[in-house]
Amino acid sequence: MTNFQSLSPQQLQEIKSTLWERYRQFRSRKITLDMTRGKPCAEQLDLALGMLDSTDGIHYLAEDGTDCRNYGGLDGIPEARALFAAYMGVGVDEIIIGASSSLNMMHDTFMRAMVNGVTENTTPWMKQPHVKFLCPSPGYDRHFFICEYLGIEMITVDINDDGPDMDCIEDLVANDDSIKGIWCVPKFSNPTGIVYADEVVDRLANMNVKAQDFRIFWDNAYAVHDLEDTPAELKNILSACKQAGNADRVLMWGSTSKISFAGSGIAMMAGSKANMEHAKRQMAFQTIGPDKLNQLRHVRFFKTMAGIEDHMQKHAAILKPKFDAVQTSLENELGGKNIAEWSKPRGGYFVSLNTMEGCAGAVVDLAAEAGVKLTPAGSTFPYKKDPLDRNIRIAPSFPPLEDIQQAMELVGICIQMVSIDKLLPSQ
Amino acid sequence: MTNFQSLSPQQLQEIKSTLWERYRQFRSRKITLDMTRGKPCAEQLDLALGMLDSTDGIHYLAEDGTDCRNYGGLDGIPEARALFAAYMGVGVDEIIIGASSSLNMMHDTFMRAMVNGVTENTTPWMKQPHVKFLCPSPGYDRHFFICEYLGIEMITVDINDDGPDMDCIEDLVANDDSIKGIWCVPKFSNPTGIVYADEVVDRLANMNVKAQDFRIFWDNAYAVHDLEDTPAELKNILSACKQAGNADRVLMWGSTSKISFAGSGIAMMAGSKANMEHAKRQMAFQTIGPDKLNQLRHVRFFKTMAGIEDHMQKHAAILKPKFDAVQTSLENELGGKNIAEWSKPRGGYFVSLNTMEGCAGAVVDLAAEAGVKLTPAGSTFPYKKDPLDRNIRIAPSFPPLEDIQQAMELVGICIQMVSIDKLLPSQ
Repeated sequence: MTNFQSLSPQQLQEIKSTLWERYRQFRSRKITLDMTRGKPCAEQLDLALGMLDSTDGIHYLAEDGTDCRNYGGLDGIPEARALFAAYMGVGVDEIIIGASSSLNMMHDTFMRAMVNGVTENTTPWMKQPHVKFLCPSPGYDRHFFICEYLGIEMITVDINDDGPDMDCIEDLVANDDSIKGIWCVPKFSNPTGIVYADEVVDRLANMNVKAQDFRIFWDNAYAVHDLEDTPAELKNILSACKQAGNADRVLMWGSTSKISFAGSGIAMMAGSKANMEHAKRQMAFQTIGPDKLNQLRHVRFFKTMAGIEDHMQKHAAILKPKFDAVQTSLENELGGKNIAEWSKPRGGYFVSLNTMEGCAGAVVDLAAEAGVKLTPAGSTFPYKKDPLDRNIRIAPSFPPLEDIQQAMELVGICIQMVSIDKLLPSQ
Repeated sequence: MTNFQSLSPQQLQEIKSTLWERYRQFRSRKITLDMTRGKPCAEQLDLALGMLDSTDGIHYLAEDGTDCRNYGGLDGIPEARALFAAYMGVGVDEIIIGASSSLNMMHDTFMRAMVNGVTENTTPWMKQPHVKFLCPSPGYDRHFFICEYLGIEMITVDINDDGPDMDCIEDLVANDDSIKGIWCVPKFSNPTGIVYADEVVDRLANMNVKAQDFRIFWDNAYAVHDLEDTPAELKNILSACKQAGNADRVLMWGSTSKISFAGSGIAMMAGSKANMEHAKRQMAFQTIGPDKLNQLRHVRFFKTMAGIEDHMQKHAAILKPKFDAVQTSLENELGGKNIAEWSKPRGGYFVSLNTMEGCAGAVVDLAAEAGVKLTPAGSTFPYKKDPLDRNIRIAPSFPPLEDIQQAMELVGICIQMVSIDKLLPSQ
């Protein structure tokens, strides 16, 4: 529990020798642990196995009589729309049930904006001289990849404990009509785990925006993914936008990828009726409709929002010990040493750790050499460049508990080693 | 069996009176029959019900150990790639297994071409002054809708018994580099039911094309959808393109929408390795991967190409009587009268009927008034405009046999009535 910042070079050298020995022992064990991605583990997926039997040779009709084995239903079967409208906190005419990937729906929304514009009356982004997007960071790498892929300039905005830096955002969007949107993961934000405060939601809904075709891309990926018994509350942004007279400002997404099966879940898009109608007019050229049998499977299995919430408590029982293990290991290795800070999320899939400036890349490399794969440093920032080279995203959901304990111990060792190198006067 | 063209006005008037009486009787029965879309019927869908039980609480691992309930696998699980590579007649590195809709994959290919270009080295279509597409017609309405939606100019090309008019096509593509592609449904073409002759396939593969980024959009939707015991043969266009030194010219699609479940099937895209790699590089921004559980369901149920072929014989046993009924009814009502011609397809989902010029729209309207809904006249042509107003698409798969018999009798009556009006000297 010694503050590294106040140790002498000699004391640091002594500690470093011990750390090197521990590191070498780790490396000699030739372990291979992957802490890179926010994937559910097998035990979580087991929880939904009953779903695979819920649609069978008899149960394939929707409640309105639709044969879910046949074509049709661009925006989903009625019971899926009802259940997931409740899930998203919107009306049944404010949701589109898609295929299995919400990322796919977000990507496609970008593609439609590029080619056709965000509304019938706005210029396609491809035909505008410059398109920019606000990216609260650290954030979700796959969001940023879409912007980079499409040549959309990303503007990094800080993210605080209560959400993105609203002073900065309000200033930017009020004055630059090439800023077309902002990426948000409002609850258990990837990777920091913070939940947007009510005030932040209200300011996003009410702020003065110069671009007519500005949209908040609200990826509520972890809406029910609480680890604690008392769920974190997130203010309904669609209601806030309506109240502010900006009903069309927000587009929302969600999915059951981390509720039922990742890749075989149900994805959804929600927003004002006008936004949904605009999307559907274009989606009608893309598809005749999504997989309705999979929708039926989900509704038959979960039945109600209470069913989803009960199910998520079982997920929490599996995930909580893993998240606790991360905290314990990090506290054991790094507590009081004043060389790193990390989040203590109440839900979601990640722990976000900040090293001293200029250390994250070296830590990730060092851990990799000893067999622990972490998300590449920089991934949580636009263009994969963390300006302070300090953020590391830890994804504890997939590996078994004992692997997490090992991996985090090693990460703790690596952070200390790299920090000491940083603190020692250059030779 | 009287040639209407050689009857006197008085004889025509007499026939018309009888027809009017029959028409009125039909109308008074207030039937409602829908012959508009190529949907499988419930009996066909029943054939695949076993598939819903083939993935359960035990069977969720792919043969390489992949947990199909979790993320990953952008281009599909190995056993699905193997089975559907055989289905498409390509190698396992020449196929991408997608979600459930091949239309979706085609649409997305267009969107990628619009925004990013067909290859890394070509200009995005959105940045080119003019983009045109060849549309053999009558053809598939949803193909044409994609072009219209994206502002791509459609050039109508005739389709003959052996495929599209190659003389015309060769002349066009050799001289106009704004022509970027051609829509093809090569086997049991929608709606004419023709199969492209080997020579047509070879000419498409070998023709001299001015645009560097020209692609044949080869929608092989009915690859195994034969009605006869002896399947129709279609030459492998990817092999032909490779032989011609134009391996990257063709992009192919297929799906099990009319094999397993429409909307809950497996869709696929195939082509040269270079084309697949290019698509995957961009798809990686769109999705983490398709629904692998549904892929597993399909492979476990069909097992092999022979399994698919056996299954399709059961489909044929259901569909053949319906197609036969169309032929019988049309022959009964219209045979020898020299006012209409219609296709006698050996497979696929449609019968294409040509009336005398200028009659199709009136026939569809007249049938609708008596309760029989046909695909809107013109739908089978670009911009929904049949220049000769003569093509009617008949989709006999979905309705029960007795409904088809009724509907086709009425259609036959309507065609005679409208034709007589056309033949009678104007008053």
